[in-house]
Amino acid sequence: MRVSKFYLNTLKEAPAEADVVSQKLMLRSGMIKKVSSGIYSWLPLGLLTLRKTEAIVREEMNRAGALECYLPHVIPAELWQETGRWDKFGPQLLKIRDRHERDFLFGPTHEEPITDVIRKDVRSYRQLPVNLYQIQVKFRDEIRPRFGVMRGREFLMKDAYSFDADRDGLMASYRAMYDAYARIFTRLGLKFRAVEADTGAIGGFASHEFQVLADAGEDAIAWCPQSDYAANVEQAEAVAPGHARPAAAETMSKVPTPTQETCEEVTDLLGLPLARSVKCLMVSVDGAVRMLLVRGDHMGNEVKIGKLPGFAGWRWSNEAEIVDAVGCRPGFLGPVGLPAGVPLVVDRAVAAMADFVCGANEPGFHLAGVNFGRDCREPDIVADLRNVVAGDPSPDGKGTLEILRGIEVGHVFALGTRYSQDMGATYLDAQGRSHLIEMGCYGIGVTRVVAAAIEQNHDAKGIVWPAAMAPFAAAIAPIGYDRSPAVRELADRLHDQWTAAGLEVLLDDRGERPGVMFADLELIGIPHRITIGDRGLKDGKVEYQGRVDAAPVAVAVDSIGTFLTDKLRN
Amino acid sequence: MRVSKFYLNTLKEAPAEADVVSQKLMLRSGMIKKVSSGIYSWLPLGLLTLRKTEAIVREEMNRAGALECYLPHVIPAELWQETGRWDKFGPQLLKIRDRHERDFLFGPTHEEPITDVIRKDVRSYRQLPVNLYQIQVKFRDEIRPRFGVMRGREFLMKDAYSFDADRDGLMASYRAMYDAYARIFTRLGLKFRAVEADTGAIGGFASHEFQVLADAGEDAIAWCPQSDYAANVEQAEAVAPGHARPAAAETMSKVPTPTQETCEEVTDLLGLPLARSVKCLMVSVDGAVRMLLVRGDHMGNEVKIGKLPGFAGWRWSNEAEIVDAVGCRPGFLGPVGLPAGVPLVVDRAVAAMADFVCGANEPGFHLAGVNFGRDCREPDIVADLRNVVAGDPSPDGKGTLEILRGIEVGHVFALGTRYSQDMGATYLDAQGRSHLIEMGCYGIGVTRVVAAAIEQNHDAKGIVWPAAMAPFAAAIAPIGYDRSPAVRELADRLHDQWTAAGLEVLLDDRGERPGVMFADLELIGIPHRITIGDRGLKDGKVEYQGRVDAAPVAVAVDSIGTFLTDKLRN
Repeated sequence: MRVSKFYLNTLKEAPAEADVVSQKLMLRSGMIKKVSSGIYSWLPLGLLTLRKTEAIVREEMNRAGALECYLPHVIPAELWQETGRWDKFGPQLLKIRDRHERDFLFGPTHEEPITDVIRKDVRSYRQLPVNLYQIQVKFRDEIRPRFGVMRGREFLMKDAYSFDADRDGLMASYRAMYDAYARIFTRLGLKFRAVEADTGAIGGFASHEFQVLADAGEDAIAWCPQSDYAANVEQAEAVAPGHARPAAAETMSKVPTPTQETCEEVTDLLGLPLARSVKCLMVSVDGAVRMLLVRGDHMGNEVKIGKLPGFAGWRWSNEAEIVDAVGCRPGFLGPVGLPAGVPLVVDRAVAAMADFVCGANEPGFHLAGVNFGRDCREPDIVADLRNVVAGDPSPDGKGTLEILRGIEVGHVFALGTRYSQDMGATYLDAQGRSHLIEMGCYGIGVTRVVAAAIEQNHDAKGIVWPAAMAPFAAAIAPIGYDRSPAVRELADRLHDQWTAAGLEVLLDDRGERPGVMFADLELIGIPHRITIGDRGLKDGKVEYQGRVDAAPVAVAVDSIGTFLTDKLRN
Repeated sequence: MRVSKFYLNTLKEAPAEADVVSQKLMLRSGMIKKVSSGIYSWLPLGLLTLRKTEAIVREEMNRAGALECYLPHVIPAELWQETGRWDKFGPQLLKIRDRHERDFLFGPTHEEPITDVIRKDVRSYRQLPVNLYQIQVKFRDEIRPRFGVMRGREFLMKDAYSFDADRDGLMASYRAMYDAYARIFTRLGLKFRAVEADTGAIGGFASHEFQVLADAGEDAIAWCPQSDYAANVEQAEAVAPGHARPAAAETMSKVPTPTQETCEEVTDLLGLPLARSVKCLMVSVDGAVRMLLVRGDHMGNEVKIGKLPGFAGWRWSNEAEIVDAVGCRPGFLGPVGLPAGVPLVVDRAVAAMADFVCGANEPGFHLAGVNFGRDCREPDIVADLRNVVAGDPSPDGKGTLEILRGIEVGHVFALGTRYSQDMGATYLDAQGRSHLIEMGCYGIGVTRVVAAAIEQNHDAKGIVWPAAMAPFAAAIAPIGYDRSPAVRELADRLHDQWTAAGLEVLLDDRGERPGVMFADLELIGIPHRITIGDRGLKDGKVEYQGRVDAAPVAVAVDSIGTFLTDKLRN
């Protein structure tokens, strides 16, 4: 491809509104253009990468036995009313009324229409399993779209749906998708982790997120380098410390903390590490207050709290409830003297602490040197209440956790019968008995993968594409294309030869200065660049420079083809 | 692909609502499934054909130098307000309001957003020409969707937009698209015509429709086999007859026609051919009535009438206007005694008639043997007022027209500056002067191409795919796959070998009876079928049958591979 025949319109500066690196680089390189909040046009440069990404997704879905289909964008409300999601999905659902005043929606995901297909077609166990997928633009009316296509409203998604006769079948389908996802992100050349995720509100029973690692990622991932265990920080189990609780060594003392309310402020005042303090989380279940303790440097985990026996429907207590139950306002709470009617639930790490710092249940005072059993009662319940942190033991017992930042680009989810039940998707087994079909759903945010790849792979000059995602494999940068016949002849010849050989090469035939050419080619992230100039040609040489190489190397004109082929192979 | 791993769910009967053959066969074969009025899901069988069609469209667009992009489905109203189409497009435009109560629409075509991209990026003549295209689902809220995906609301379209510095550039871009379209439909294996079309309301200056020929087509095409001239029947010029007006041979006579008002009724009564009568079309321009005459067997053409000098804003006259102007009600009108104030406009064919039949301007009477100049005045204007019919001379003077039926699947349109003017899309020339960009737009209804291909290629058993559009190139139909190890082994081996060689072959491994297998494979239109049975295998033979072959032929097992390869090559 010649630049003169292509649509290359780069910008010196990103629009001021761009928040993150990928958004800035995609706008500057001209991959995308903003149309409205969270809505972008994909221009030719961006679409080349998007289509390459899409092609790898499609190949691996097909390899895994999934069958491609294409469901409507505009879906009748009736299907979503059957599952209750017409109301429950919330304002992210873009509702549409047609000319006959009938209700429709722009599909943000397609469980309902695909289940409708299956319930109409599938009668017998002999028709199962089946996995149908599509690669299609979705719309979710995010209240605050941001980060460009990373959290846009309109986005390209691969969504797959598996249908199995039983739970074992579902888990085999799930595993096949998990493996396909791992192959996809590996082929794309991305550093990623598949992490255990919470099954949350959708109510399935197994779920993994695929996270592309990037410092700017919104999600925190707990990862064990020794075992490759990985989970969402909210999901990873915080196991009990490897040691028993030490014996009490200090006597309890009351410390005036007139203006100190947080653990940080109190331990600062006392000159103690934050990890020596405990923090009280007060929650109400059915109107009754309970006290939860986590270490001062740990964070309570709402999902874990919600899963404790008897904690269904819990909420954070308000100040009046707390004062009523404990006799002290928040900021100075602690387990010492806790009324017997208020259950004491303690995180595993706290249960192994001695001589800790906590509130005195008296405004303006904290206690130091506190010990369970001696100064306050032993915990009523010891449980995992918190997010893991770096240095925690891995839950698989095989090492120590690190915390990585990631961008969620894929999600596999074992749904079970939630949709088949609501919509009556059943089959008959060999004995003629009717059963609900077991479903899984599997998504990849294809547009988001592109942005995440840039977050992971860029430098000060621009994008650094992994080979599989580069819009062009190589670029030819001729210095003086507009005035040197020798430069022009070689540039044209290499372009034509390589193009004929199936290599995707971009020839910058604009006759621009080297600085302009190099800046554009680096910005758009072409992995390999061949520079042709009169000075080198006198010695029969051209220059090769990889996108992240510090300096070019001279290569004989005669061997540049094989030189580049070797580079592309590696 | 094995049927057991595929999604093959055929129906014995099409739903009662299906109106046309393609719709029936697409529903019966399981290519598509209805979701709502004019909205269909594409299931795996249908999508294979759709994607093959799309791939050929994409290849030829790329070959023609067009660059693929992807604009949003959900477009802000502001862009369409700039061109006035937010109001003027009518109720086919699916309007959407987002959670912030801002107005959007589901793109039915993308002139506005693509012009917005160009006006933001293009500054200089050096950036032109450029042709951007996308392959994308559109929505048009048809009031009465019908014929399945042929006239659906949601449909897949290839839409391209060219941008040129001047009119010559635009016509070169137009020609490149015209040629690409011809290659596309040729490669798809379809019989088609590129026909001159009216530029109509959009107001461009050149336009061709690409019509797939099919008896059930909604459009009539005038075609000259001697010269390959083709035009929409409404567009083709009806040239003057090759002969001068004969001399009058009859005297005028008044005929009582008490109940006969139409030309058919009157000529039936008189025992004359319909072509001997003339028909009066009464129109009003600015409140003044004019009489138009066309031959009794011809049809007036509203587009041509509208293009007559001084006929802008014309409409059909109402009965009161006619009685007021001519003194007689419709049914018995004619040029004899026409008041001088009513202009007489005559079709070229009528101008060459002598001794014709027309109304007597007296209720209950017609006149026969009427002649211009003798019985009524000579025409004030002679012009082309009618649709061409079979047997008319070709306007290019090279033969005689035939009338074909077609389905419009593509349209190329030279727009000029209609959108660049409204939206301010300009460039600077080499002298720094600003000009409006010249635009063209070019559409292919990809989903409609699939339906049109079926309308053109089917028989009583089902679809007869052209090779390029077949979901599978060949099928293996093993008789007794479930009980004969020899049949099974050969079927599996051929399937695996051919699949490994890149041949798209469908193995029916269900163990169904031959009748069921053959009916399914014929219904879904697989071009080549290899039948394997124990009886043939005893003699080392399998059977080959092409989709439209009357009977199978026996082929030695050892040579079936090369036999099939030969068939696929032809």
